[in-house]
Amino acid sequence: MDQNTQKPVSPGTSNLADEDLTQAVLATFEHSQSERFQQVMQSLVRHVHAFAEEVELTEEEWFKGIDFLTRTGHITDDKRQEFVLLSDILGVSMLVIGLNQKKSALATASTVFGPFFVENSPHFENGDDIANGASGEPCFMYGRVLSTKGDLIPGAHIDIWQADDNGFYDVQHKETSHVYGRGHLSSDKEGKYCFWSVRPEAYPIPQDGPVGELLDAANRSPMRPAHVHFLIKVSGYKPLITHVFKQDDPYLDSDAVFGVRTSLITSFERHEPGMAPDGKRMNVPFYTMHYDFLLDPAADEE
Amino acid sequence: MDQNTQKPVSPGTSNLADEDLTQAVLATFEHSQSERFQQVMQSLVRHVHAFAEEVELTEEEWFKGIDFLTRTGHITDDKRQEFVLLSDILGVSMLVIGLNQKKSALATASTVFGPFFVENSPHFENGDDIANGASGEPCFMYGRVLSTKGDLIPGAHIDIWQADDNGFYDVQHKETSHVYGRGHLSSDKEGKYCFWSVRPEAYPIPQDGPVGELLDAANRSPMRPAHVHFLIKVSGYKPLITHVFKQDDPYLDSDAVFGVRTSLITSFERHEPGMAPDGKRMNVPFYTMHYDFLLDPAADEE
Repeated sequence: MDQNTQKPVSPGTSNLADEDLTQAVLATFEHSQSERFQQVMQSLVRHVHAFAEEVELTEEEWFKGIDFLTRTGHITDDKRQEFVLLSDILGVSMLVIGLNQKKSALATASTVFGPFFVENSPHFENGDDIANGASGEPCFMYGRVLSTKGDLIPGAHIDIWQADDNGFYDVQHKETSHVYGRGHLSSDKEGKYCFWSVRPEAYPIPQDGPVGELLDAANRSPMRPAHVHFLIKVSGYKPLITHVFKQDDPYLDSDAVFGVRTSLITSFERHEPGMAPDGKRMNVPFYTMHYDFLLDPAADEE
Repeated sequence: MDQNTQKPVSPGTSNLADEDLTQAVLATFEHSQSERFQQVMQSLVRHVHAFAEEVELTEEEWFKGIDFLTRTGHITDDKRQEFVLLSDILGVSMLVIGLNQKKSALATASTVFGPFFVENSPHFENGDDIANGASGEPCFMYGRVLSTKGDLIPGAHIDIWQADDNGFYDVQHKETSHVYGRGHLSSDKEGKYCFWSVRPEAYPIPQDGPVGELLDAANRSPMRPAHVHFLIKVSGYKPLITHVFKQDDPYLDSDAVFGVRTSLITSFERHEPGMAPDGKRMNVPFYTMHYDFLLDPAADEE
């Protein structure tokens, strides 16, 4: 047979098994364009190979993994980020946030970005109602953007997004492009922000995709405690990606994405019908949420 | 400020950093539906966390990673599998093959599946020309399917796919669905197979997607030595996914996907115009490739 009469080839990328293979793959990154890229890729290769060896990954499992990643990619679009959700439920998002938070003790803690941020949300002025028809009880949210030294920060870009009281973000309704519970505004000249929206509720993360299957297979709860997302950006300060969580939520200690920080929990106070803090007269009960965001200076301003 | 008056929460999934976070994520897999799933996921979590910590992955790099995976998913369809290509160039595919090849020394070696397999390829009879217009010099390929004990195996399903002499598979031509260099047939009652096609050439793996960017950043060669893919399945034997490589190819020792096994290299012999092994009279020079495939018995037949 032909295979008995073949020419030997010199060592390189052929006939490699296990440790030699890993070494050969690592070597292919030795001429990378940047040292950092080389470092990241070589570490990734070492850990992915070590994982496959440790569990003796079968070919069937490898095919399942390829299929899982493919479906995760295919369900992802400009309104749903299943890879972010995957990173979230594996604790990778919070780990990366933790590794990068060289914050002062005073600065507001960061938490996960989540899969439902949308670029170019509607613009609002302070005092506007960003609910735009979202189901839920009215809630007036207000506070300030400050530096960790206590300076008021005017003109900070504040992006806000949240689920309604059924636990759905606007972008989860595939049949409509109605935008609700989402928008951006700027802190005023005194660093203040305020807007109306609805009181958030706890909700399950989306279970109709690959990440849902994974949670199922792990018998894991998909629940997240009620929260409102904030993304705050302003020149001279580190950007802040965070949530404000609702006090007394039953899921504060079992968040499916490990995102809760005690310092991000605050009360959503209930009020009987009457005058709201902005002077608006409410005929129904309403809530208020007050939270101040403290930003660290940007790295080059320190 | 509200964050100074908050209620403490008990330990669980909140306020976690680094090692505690990793432990909390591992704990969420402790009630998995299967022990194997738990084992695989916990190992994956440990290694992904260890990777992020080891390189101190930045948030910018995390976003780049999410974007890379998303684009890898979006470019993948039923004719192109960029995640398989990614696994291939990171050596993960060959590693998994190596971990699972509990083959006898006689059995034909496996190699990577590659990104260009297509389900339901055209059916051919032995002796047919599967080139179907593929650019390249005619090549008659033939051999047998045998057990490692030397028994002839009739009726084995043999799927074949290959690039033309420009280095392209049919499915890489987006503007047409013309199928070429691809098909399946069965070994005859003596275990023999034969077909006409074209002589394969070395080619670069696709560089127009995320994997191409990664190779660029690593200054890595995208070249693969010339080969023909074979997938052989028959009841009672382990399926075989492999290539036959062309002797003397300059890239045999620098395959971008680490797929070469010396035992899979054979000569593609050149012949002047005249009679081919199947009796066909050729007016142009042609090649012959002879290779026998040896299959191990299926696990439950051992």
